[in-house]
Parts: sequence; structure tokens; C-alpha cells
Amino acid sequence: MIDFEIDGELAALRHRVDEFVREVAIPAEARDSSEHGLDEGLRTELQDEARKWGLFGPQISADLGGLGLDHRGTAVILEASGYSVLGPQAMHCAAPDEGNIHMLDVIADPEQRERYLVPLAAGRIRSCFAMTEPAPGAGADPSMLLTRADRIDGGWVIDGRKWFITGAEGAGFAICMALTDEGATMFLVDADNPGFRLERTIEATDRAFPGGHCEVLFEECRVDDAAVLGTVGEGFRYAQVRLAPARLTHCERWLGTARRALDFAIDRANEREAFGQKLGELGMVQRMIAESVLDIETSQAMIWRCAWALDQGRPARHESSLAKAHVAEAVNRVVDRSIQICGALGISGDAPLARLLNEVRPFRIYDGPTETHLWAIARRALRDRAADASAS
Amino acid sequence: MIDFEIDGELAALRHRVDEFVREVAIPAEARDSSEHGLDEGLRTELQDEARKWGLFGPQISADLGGLGLDHRGTAVILEASGYSVLGPQAMHCAAPDEGNIHMLDVIADPEQRERYLVPLAAGRIRSCFAMTEPAPGAGADPSMLLTRADRIDGGWVIDGRKWFITGAEGAGFAICMALTDEGATMFLVDADNPGFRLERTIEATDRAFPGGHCEVLFEECRVDDAAVLGTVGEGFRYAQVRLAPARLTHCERWLGTARRALDFAIDRANEREAFGQKLGELGMVQRMIAESVLDIETSQAMIWRCAWALDQGRPARHESSLAKAHVAEAVNRVVDRSIQICGALGISGDAPLARLLNEVRPFRIYDGPTETHLWAIARRALRDRAADASAS
Amino acid sequence: MIDFEIDGELAALRHRVDEFVREVAIPAEARDSSEHGLDEGLRTELQDEARKWGLFGPQISADLGGLGLDHRGTAVILEASGYSVLGPQAMHCAAPDEGNIHMLDVIADPEQRERYLVPLAAGRIRSCFAMTEPAPGAGADPSMLLTRADRIDGGWVIDGRKWFITGAEGAGFAICMALTDEGATMFLVDADNPGFRLERTIEATDRAFPGGHCEVLFEECRVDDAAVLGTVGEGFRYAQVRLAPARLTHCERWLGTARRALDFAIDRANEREAFGQKLGELGMVQRMIAESVLDIETSQAMIWRCAWALDQGRPARHESSLAKAHVAEAVNRVVDRSIQICGALGISGDAPLARLLNEVRPFRIYDGPTETHLWAIARRALRDRAADASAS
Amino acid sequence: MIDFEIDGELAALRHRVDEFVREVAIPAEARDSSEHGLDEGLRTELQDEARKWGLFGPQISADLGGLGLDHRGTAVILEASGYSVLGPQAMHCAAPDEGNIHMLDVIADPEQRERYLVPLAAGRIRSCFAMTEPAPGAGADPSMLLTRADRIDGGWVIDGRKWFITGAEGAGFAICMALTDEGATMFLVDADNPGFRLERTIEATDRAFPGGHCEVLFEECRVDDAAVLGTVGEGFRYAQVRLAPARLTHCERWLGTARRALDFAIDRANEREAFGQKLGELGMVQRMIAESVLDIETSQAMIWRCAWALDQGRPARHESSLAKAHVAEAVNRVVDRSIQICGALGISGDAPLARLLNEVRPFRIYDGPTETHLWAIARRALRDRAADASAS
Repeated sequence: MIDFEIDGELAALRHRVDEFVREVAIPAEARDSSEHGLDEGLRTELQDEARKWGLFGPQISADLGGLGLDHRGTAVILEASGYSVLGPQAMHCAAPDEGNIHMLDVIADPEQRERYLVPLAAGRIRSCFAMTEPAPGAGADPSMLLTRADRIDGGWVIDGRKWFITGAEGAGFAICMALTDEGATMFLVDADNPGFRLERTIEATDRAFPGGHCEVLFEECRVDDAAVLGTVGEGFRYAQVRLAPARLTHCERWLGTARRALDFAIDRANEREAFGQKLGELGMVQRMIAESVLDIETSQAMIWRCAWALDQGRPARHESSLAKAHVAEAVNRVVDRSIQICGALGISGDAPLARLLNEVRPFRIYDGPTETHLWAIARRALRDRAADASAS
Repeated sequence: MIDFEIDGELAALRHRVDEFVREVAIPAEARDSSEHGLDEGLRTELQDEARKWGLFGPQISADLGGLGLDHRGTAVILEASGYSVLGPQAMHCAAPDEGNIHMLDVIADPEQRERYLVPLAAGRIRSCFAMTEPAPGAGADPSMLLTRADRIDGGWVIDGRKWFITGAEGAGFAICMALTDEGATMFLVDADNPGFRLERTIEATDRAFPGGHCEVLFEECRVDDAAVLGTVGEGFRYAQVRLAPARLTHCERWLGTARRALDFAIDRANEREAFGQKLGELGMVQRMIAESVLDIETSQAMIWRCAWALDQGRPARHESSLAKAHVAEAVNRVVDRSIQICGALGISGDAPLARLLNEVRPFRIYDGPTETHLWAIARRALRDRAADASAS
Repeated sequence: MIDFEIDGELAALRHRVDEFVREVAIPAEARDSSEHGLDEGLRTELQDEARKWGLFGPQISADLGGLGLDHRGTAVILEASGYSVLGPQAMHCAAPDEGNIHMLDVIADPEQRERYLVPLAAGRIRSCFAMTEPAPGAGADPSMLLTRADRIDGGWVIDGRKWFITGAEGAGFAICMALTDEGATMFLVDADNPGFRLERTIEATDRAFPGGHCEVLFEECRVDDAAVLGTVGEGFRYAQVRLAPARLTHCERWLGTARRALDFAIDRANEREAFGQKLGELGMVQRMIAESVLDIETSQAMIWRCAWALDQGRPARHESSLAKAHVAEAVNRVVDRSIQICGALGISGDAPLARLLNEVRPFRIYDGPTETHLWAIARRALRDRAADASAS
Repeated sequence: MIDFEIDGELAALRHRVDEFVREVAIPAEARDSSEHGLDEGLRTELQDEARKWGLFGPQISADLGGLGLDHRGTAVILEASGYSVLGPQAMHCAAPDEGNIHMLDVIADPEQRERYLVPLAAGRIRSCFAMTEPAPGAGADPSMLLTRADRIDGGWVIDGRKWFITGAEGAGFAICMALTDEGATMFLVDADNPGFRLERTIEATDRAFPGGHCEVLFEECRVDDAAVLGTVGEGFRYAQVRLAPARLTHCERWLGTARRALDFAIDRANEREAFGQKLGELGMVQRMIAESVLDIETSQAMIWRCAWALDQGRPARHESSLAKAHVAEAVNRVVDRSIQICGALGISGDAPLARLLNEVRPFRIYDGPTETHLWAIARRALRDRAADASAS
């Protein structure tokens, strides 16, 4: 039956995460100064701290050393972690590792599990997901995939260029999507494979991802048959396994970001005066605050609904599109309004907001631009009614 | 724990309501032609039909002859009923009776219960809630109440003008909010009281309410002490008892209206061609459809969350404001986009949409304009942070 | 050189129109009660009055008895006339006659001029423009035209169904767009032609057009060769001649409507109190007012720019699309916000706003839905850049 | 009479600026890499180049070596210059010097003119305008001014902290707004005054301003009487002299930025394919492009109208508020949509868009946040109607 209760154990865990973020993550923010992604040393230090607090890997299976939360529990905890951009890094629930761990946990064979998943889940290595390509390759439309993998004796040779590969620099391995004669296929490629080359780090507005966003080249990249993840030709299906939950965890973490931004703005509105009143007494400011509260609460509800659907074992594509399309836009609006409330402080480095805007802006594009999700939502709605009509 | 499941019994009831709306309510729409509100004869006929279907009074307590659903069950069923403007009338879950029944069930003393609540719940009489006043009286701001009730020997005399009193024409009694020396107080006033006068029916864009919206006069209106509902001076507190759930049922019914409008537009988009494509294949139309789906799904979630909070016995003022502010705006957007998708058909009488727009437009004003709710949401957010700050 | 001055003569004329609207048109509004369009008797009376004031036919050529204003002068005067829905009717600058007069003035041969244009311009007869068709015929996409005209001995026979033909009831003649072997062609069809049949009046949200919106049938409708307007096969080109200015005059009149709505709301905000302040002192109300002022001022500028381009003898399709897309949406927002500011009064018949909303809503669809214009604007922008790229 | 023509000479000049931007400014963008504002060397080099092209100081009076354009001419040329962030720097029409030159040209006495204005207009020194203060001082509300200037023998001593003082680092002098017993007063303070101290450069999202945004301290800062700009106590009035045109030139330059962003996105939409079509053929992309065209065209019209009003010698406060409120929001929407159209490329350093978003975001706050202008617009509208009402 419809229920919005967070049970006691989960509520206690969330409370603990709130404390961790307040006492550990936020104070560390001032030390996060690298330009293209979080400093690895700081990340390691924070992860150690999270282990001490018992908060490492909330969404990772217990047998891999995580807390083994279901999707709803993950939703609650990841939102709390996202209140600082360092929270998800510390708690090892950040993209892209989080999505890769989830997918490998479902698909990897025992040997791959041992070799890649175990150290990844433990935070000993990092990973990247090499899917998107520069034009005219696969971007929002995965069917435009140009990277090829061709069979050679005892294995495969991969050739292609990948773009915006988050965390590639410093990753221990890449999961590479390539086209074979049997269809799209995923390959596990070690970072020290001589055919795997990091071309450059791409400048981007966000910089919370260790390893940044990279352009990488697979050039006569030879891998053996054991490198195939799952079954040949099933790459796009596996991508779906990864995508729905990975999209959702993005929503969860960034919802935490939105709360941070709004709280900052509200505190300012409670203090700062203008035109003879506190900012928070001005109707236009109140409107911005209220609209942000609405954006946050509707976002949380869409996330929870999708998490619940995933917990029922459903693919939840529709719920995932709804959540992604709504939350990405909502989060951006919240951060933007928070800046506007704070005025010049908002766009300055004296407040966290300007940086947060740069962190959240790409979310309207990552994991499928808003427009792609709207398209999917509309087509489903059109199809459902057409089916109803022909059924009746 | 977080749950979006509608359990089997409730799902079956909803299915039954869907059938009732399709087979009884929608076919009757063509006969609903009165200008200022639903024809009483048609209403009676539809209510009889709903009784036969076992769907009368879903939200009314079982001891009063209803189905006794809790707030969540009510949310699900009233949304389904709202798919036709005649659905809530037929099922006796329309405003203002629905809210009055709820309030009387909580507050009325045994005698009042017998005299007013029992026939009202049974659909034998109608009622009205006489609260709002013309300028400079109580509108969005109830504290501006001008209607007075003064003690006389053995009772009270009420004087004042009320405005936009829904359903007053034809009502068996009015619940009148008036100011006494002890504060705002509610009085039960029989419609045949010589001091109660119906001045006129106010033209309004909506016309789904039997009895329309009226201007009524309380002029030397004498009532005895038994006419006081609850305790003298507690009127505003009782209004809150009525308001949160009454607001929510408005949201529920009108969400059903939004679904109706969107379905109509989608069906049109699946059929009509322009520029060499089905309308539904045009990106701009798809965007409108997807945004409407998002509006509907986020609205449902906000309603469910508030209903759940009410079921926990909480006053749920915050959840109620969130739901009202979001749903009223969302529903209007959905109906408006549906019209736009349908083009000239949309604004014509050949489609139900133009009428539906006129039905839903007032909802952004009734039960507190959107801006009033945004104000309440913002003030609560500001207060909560201020309290956090001073606590830490 | 860039100039926003309204010269003295025009300013004086506008002032005179303001007076006329205030003293003649607005007081007559209470008498405008017909359901499907303005009462013909009232229209005649108002037109006589406008003649007395020297304000009849501001946009009509002087040789046809009008004031002969250019497009910019027309823009200024029609905006002023639109402050009352009766203004354009009184001053004979309302659709569809206004657009038909303009087109006939450009295209009609001397005989057609005498027979149709002269009495039409003088207000002795009315006309209609029979272009749009019910699905699956020509709606937003004119290329879907289904009405046929085939040559017969000495003339043509027209067959087809037309829909949403404004002013058809009571019109002296129709300009009918039909498909011939040589392409779309316009025909002048007398209303008493036995092959011209009025099927019904279509209910629509607006009711300011005399004759309403009708469904008409051309059934073996025989006309002689003299009925061809201009050249056979040039119908779509002529429609463009009519459309750009006709669209613009729609924008102008409805901009006046928006001003009326905003003024009403501002007056209310200056008087009505809530929460201890005048409405106009509340920030959320101020925001709505300011956004409406911006909508009105940007709309006027887009109209003036298009009018100026037309005065340069340019077809001004781009400017016309910009103006139509912007103004139609802006005007609707202004009226909607005005209602919201006024609360329950706004959606009641005690204020003119609810009716105005129903008047302006169709404007986002008439003369090409907003989406069609956005499409045209985008394609032009894409084409222009592509041309630049290939040129450089 | 209403006119949107750009006369031949001005059109030729604009064409020349377009060439300059394309051939000089845009190619130099890759060399603009300093973090807190444009490199001074690069600026000098570009200004030399602009002098060679005859494009230096378009808005500066001819007797000061500029082109002496009026406000409308300036509007046209500054918009063209803004197509590259380096354009206004090269052509010496960037903030804050541009506004300071204008104000000094109106107010400075002959000696101040010689000492400050002549070298400033020539580009030999830079200046800053020290008005805004950190909380609780003067931000959006100038009346909260805390910086004091007190009379001492033969002069004044200034004390106060200023914040977000653009271009302070490297400026030759500051114009400081301080409170005296006679009211707010402006003082010319040499940068080498020992009482003028640069505290730090404030990190901000934009970095196109040489000298960045600084926090500066006036600490027992002694100046003589000749340092008073204009009359003591007239500071706020002079600020208005500066503000209306300075706001407008901001609008003009940033409108150029918006055009650049949109052109980039359109070019991408003409090339990049997804889902079997060019991006530019997708309806949702077309909608974004069209809305951006509308934003740009309405912005230009609002700018032109204000420039025209200023050319008539009017203070144009209303027109200036309208332009600022509309253009700042519109420009941000355009850049944001351009990013969205370009997907991951848009938020990457491979495209100029991510940087442009950071450049334009502050514009919604600088020179009065949008909300402050909306407030001013609303109050004027309310006042005007109240005056009408009491007059009639």
C-alpha cells in the first residue's frame, strides 16, 4: 500500500550520513582544488574515513563489502550523501564506478568478478565506461556506434574513438562498447593494454569526477575472449541494465546538491536585508524558495517511485525516464534560483553555488539529454493509448 | 517503507470506477447543459446509478453509508472519478458536500449529526460552506472576516455578506463562518431561515457545481445555541480540519480531469496528420505530451504523499500546500497543452477541452491561490532553517 | 534611423480612439450578450457611432472611405481599438473583413471591386474566408486542402467542406480556397448561391465575431469565371498576401485586450488588501504585473517592427511569424496573470477577465498555431546559417 | 515615425565590426587564458588593432578620440562587438570604463577631465567604480551604503569596504561612492592613494573583465576637495546618469554573446545527426532555436527602444529597467538552450558555450538583479494607474 515512511533503521542511517557529510565531507571541500576532477589522494583519505563511519558502499552488495541497500534505501542515502559533492566520492557511491559495480555484479562471470569487480567494489581501483563517441559517432543516439570489435584468433581487436569517458584517467580498466558482427558488445579492457590510449582530458564545467572526462582511443586494441562481458551482441541490453539504476543514482546525488544550494540561499535570505526587509520577507524571494521546495519534493517522489519499481524487479524504464527528465531540470532550477537569491555572493567563489551550477548543468545532458527522455515518455504515452484504442 | 503499490482490492475498485465513468458518467455529459451548475435531476439520476454500482460515497464513513476509504484510497478513487466532471457528482465525492461531510463527521454533536450530516451523507440534501466574502472582506486572507455573530438571548444573530458560496442555491443548509467576541465561529444555518438570503448566482467559468457559486446575505439571521458547530471561537481551527483534506480531494478529482484532457489530445495526435506526419510524430507535440505526463505523475505523487500523511493522523499542512500549489498549476498546464495539440478542435465545442479549461482555471484560485500556498511553503522553509541554525 | 516616435497626428488619432473606446465601446459591452458572436444590430449601431467620430476603417484605403493608414499607423490605432472587444467591430477593423478588404484591394478586378469590395469596405455587407477544413483536410497545414474546383462550361463547380469559417453566418459572400488542376485557387461565392450551405455554428470559446465560426458546405456549387479572384492556381500566394497583415492586425487588437486585462488587475491591486497590505505591495503580485508589462512592451515592439517591414513593401514573413508567435503567447499570459491577481473576482462574470481569457485563448491557434510559427522561425534560422556557411 | 532602419553609414560600420570580430577578436580568444580577467597585454594589443581598424571607442565623444555614436548607433555597434567577449575590450566599449567615461564626460570639471577622463578615454589607464559593498552594506539596495566620507581640513577622509569592484586591480583610479553628511557623494581616488587598498580578487564565474572583481578597502583614505565628482550629496543622482546607459551597453554586448551562442548551436544542428535526422530537423531542437530567435529579437527591440529614448534626452529609467530585466534573462536562456542543443560538446571546453554561460550568468545580478527591475517596473505601473484613477 502507498507509503512514504522511511523505516527506523534507514532513518538512522540517513542521520548518520548527514553527520558524516557535515563533519567530514563539507569541511574537506576547501581542499578540493584540482581543475579536472577530484584529487585522488583526497578521495582515498575520505573513503577511509567513510569506512570508519560504516558508510562505505551503501548500494554495494554485502558480499562485496557494501551495505547492500535496496534501491529505495539507496535513494534515501545517496540523496543525503550528495549534500556535499565529496559525499558520494567518500562513500563510494559516485558515478561511474557505482554503475559499473552494479552492472558487473549482474553480468560478470566468476573470473571477471574476481579480477575486476572485487577490487573495484573495495575502492582499490577505479573504472570507466567507454560508450559515447565524438560526432558522427554515438552520442545521445547509441545506435550510431562507430567503434568496431572484430574477431581475431583467440580474441578481438577493438578500434574506435571514445569521448567524454568519465574517470578514464587513472582508471584500472574500461568497459568498452563496440560493434561486432553480432551487434553491440561490451569488453573489459585493462588500462595498461597498449591499444588503449588516453588522448586528453576534456575541459568540462563539472570537476567532481576523479579522472575528469577524457577522450580515449582504442587502436588495434587486442583483448582475449575472456574480455567479453556477458554475451556477444547483447551490449545494448546490458547498457539498459546499467542505465536505469545509474541514472537514478545520478538523480539522487544531485538532489542532495539541490538541497545544499537551497539551504544556503535560505540561510542567506534569513540574514541579509535589502529594501528595509530581510530578503526572506520579499515576495519574489519567497516565490523562488517555494518553487525550489516544490522542485525538490516532486523530484524526491519521482526518484522514490522509480526506486520502488526497480525493487519490484521491473526494468522501470518509464519511471527512470520520468525521474531523469524531471530531476535534472528541477535540480538546475533550484541551484539557479539559489544563486539569484544570493546576488553577487551567489556567483562568487565565496559561496558554493557558482561551482554547484557548473556541476549540475551537465546533468541535463548526461545519461540522455532531457529532450531524449521527453521523447521516450511521449512515444510510450502515444503507444499506450494506441494500444488501448485497438484493444477496445 | 516507501511503497507505490495499490493493493488488489483498491485496484479492483478503481477499475470499477473506470468502468462506471466510461459507461455512465461520460455518456451523460452531453445532457449536462445547464449554465450555472449541474442540473439537479441529472445529479440525482447519476447518484442512483452510482449506488447501484456500489460506488456511492467512497470517502464517506461506512456508518454513514459510504465506502469508508482512508485518504490514500480516496486519492486513488477520486482521481478515477474525476475523469468525467460528472463522476464526482454521481459518486457523491464532489465539493463542497464532500468537505462538509468530512468536517461534520469530525465536529458535529449527535443532534447536528442526525439533523444535518446523515441526510447530507446520504445525498438527500446538499450543503454549502459560507466562508469567503466580497472585498474588503475575507478572500485569500481569512483574517479579514467581516461577517459578525452576536449573542442574543438563547442564541445568536448573524450579519454579513458572503460571496462565491458554492452550491448555495438549492442547499439544505449553510455552514457559516462568522466573527464573535470569542473569535471566528461556525454556525449551521438552515436554508429556510428568513435571515438567510440568496442574492444572486455569480457567473463563473466553471459550471460543474450544482447550485453554482452564489452571493448570499445573512441579515439579522437568528439561530439558537445548538447551531454552533463545535466550540465558539474555534472556527479557524475547524476550517483547517476541513481544508487540508478538501484541498486534496480537489487535487484528486482535477487530476482525473487532466488525464481526460491528455488522453483526448493523445488520441488526436495518434490520428490527425499535418506536414506529412501524424501530429504525434512531431517533436513539438511530443514535448507537450511528455511535459503533461510529467505534470500528471508528479501531481499524483504529491497527492499520495499528502494522503499518506493524513492517514498517519498528521495535519499535513505542508504536504497539503505542496500538493495544492503543484497540482493546480500542473492540471491547468495539462489541459492547456491538450487544447494546443488539438488546434481549432481544441477550442471548439466538438471537443471537451475548452470546457475543461474553464472548469480547471478557478482551481488555481479556489482553496487559496497558488501564490498563497507558495508563500506558506516559503515561510515554513525559512522558519525551519532558522530553527536549525539557532539549535546548532 | 531607429525611431519609436508616434508622430503628432497619429498620436492625436490614437487619443481619439482611446476616448471612443472609453465612451462608446466599453459602455456597450454590457449589451453584448449573444452566445455565438456579436449581435448584428449592436454592431451596426456602433459602426454608425464610429463614423460620426471619424474613426471608421482606419486601415481601409481612403478611396474606399477609410482613413488610409499605413501598417504602422494601423498598428497603433488597432491596438487602441482592441482595448474593448467591441472597438474593432465598431471601427470596422476586425477579422475577417479587415483581412478580406486588404486582399481584395490588392487582387480584385474592377468588377469584383465594385460588387464585393466597395460594399464590404463600407460595412454594408460582411464576408468570410473559407479556407480551413475539418480533418483530414487543411488545418495548420494548408497543403492538405481537399476542397475541389473543377472546370465546367463557362465556369467552375466547387465541392468541399469548410470548418471554422469565421463570420459565415450572415456574410454576403465567401472567399473560398479550392484545389484546381492548376493549383489552389480563390473563388468569390455569393452567400445565396444554392451550392453554398451553412451547416452549423461551431461552439467556440470566443464570441466576439459576428456570425461566429461555422461549418459550411460547398456542394455542386457553381460559379462563373468571373468568380475567380486573381489568377487560377495562385491561391496560396494570395493567401500570403492576406496572411501577414491579417495576422498582424490580430496581434494589434489582442494586444489592446491584454492592456485592458492588465489595467483591470492593476486597479484591483491598488485597491484590494490582503495580509495587511494592498495586493500591489505583495512581491508575488508585483512580479506578475512586471512580467505582464514586459510581455506587452515586447509584443508592441515585435508588432511595430513587422508593420515597419510591411510598410517598406517587404513580405515580412519572418517578422510576421516572430510577432504572431510572441504576441499570441504573451497576450494569453497577460490575461491569465490578470485573473490570478484578481482571485475569485477574476474568474467571475463580475470582471471582464474570464471572458477575455476565452477570447484570447484561440489566438494561439488561429492563423497558424504557435508551434507552426516556431517551426518556420527555426527553419529560416537554420537555412540562413547554412547559406552563410556555404557562402564563406 | 516608427522606424527600424539602420542607415547606410551605421550599417557599414556594423559590417566593419563584424569583420573585425571575425578576423581579430575571435582568433585571439584561444590566447585569453587568465583566470580572473583578461590579460592586460592581450587587451593592449587588441586595442591597438581596433585603432588601426578605426573602431576604437565607438561610444566615446569625438573630442575624446572616439567615434561619437549616439545611443542607437552604440546599440547597434556594441551588439556586434559582443559577438566575441574580446570585442568590447578591443574596441574600448567594455564595462566598467565605458560607463565611467560616459559619466565623467557629463560631470567632471575641466581639471578632472584632463587628469582622469582623457587618459581613460584613450585607453592609457583603466578605472573602476567602487559602489557595492559586502553585507550588510549596499548591494541591490544602494540606500544601505555604509562607506563614509567625512570632511577634514582641505578635503575628506573615506572609510569603508567595497566588494565586487570590477577592474580594480590595475585600475589607475576609482570612483568611490561614500556617504557624507550631505548625502551620497562620488570621489575620484587615485589607485596609489595609500588609503586605497586592494584586498583580494573575488573568484567569479565570469572572467572577461581585466582586473577581475575585487574587494577593496578605503582606510583613512584622504583626498582633497578637488576629488569630489560634481556636487557633494548628489551621488545617487549621478549614479543614475551612469546606470541607465551602462546597463544598456551591458545588454548590447551580451546580446552579441547570445547571437554567438545561438549561431554555434545552429551550425551544430545543421551538421550533427541523431536518430536518423539532422539535429536541426528534430522538433524539440527547432523549438529551442525558435525560442532563442524570439529572445534575441525581442531583446534587440527593447534595447533599441531604450537607446532611442536616451537619444531624446530622456532619463529612460522605465525603458532601461524593461531592457535590463528582459535582456539579462533572455540572453541566459539563449546560451543555456545553445548548450542543450550541443549536448556534451556544449558543456565542454571544445565549444565556447560553457564559458559563455559563466560569462552571462552574473548579468542577471549585475546592475540590479532582475527582481529589482521587475519591482521597479511594477511599482511604476501601479503608480501610473493610480494617478490615472485620481486624475479622472
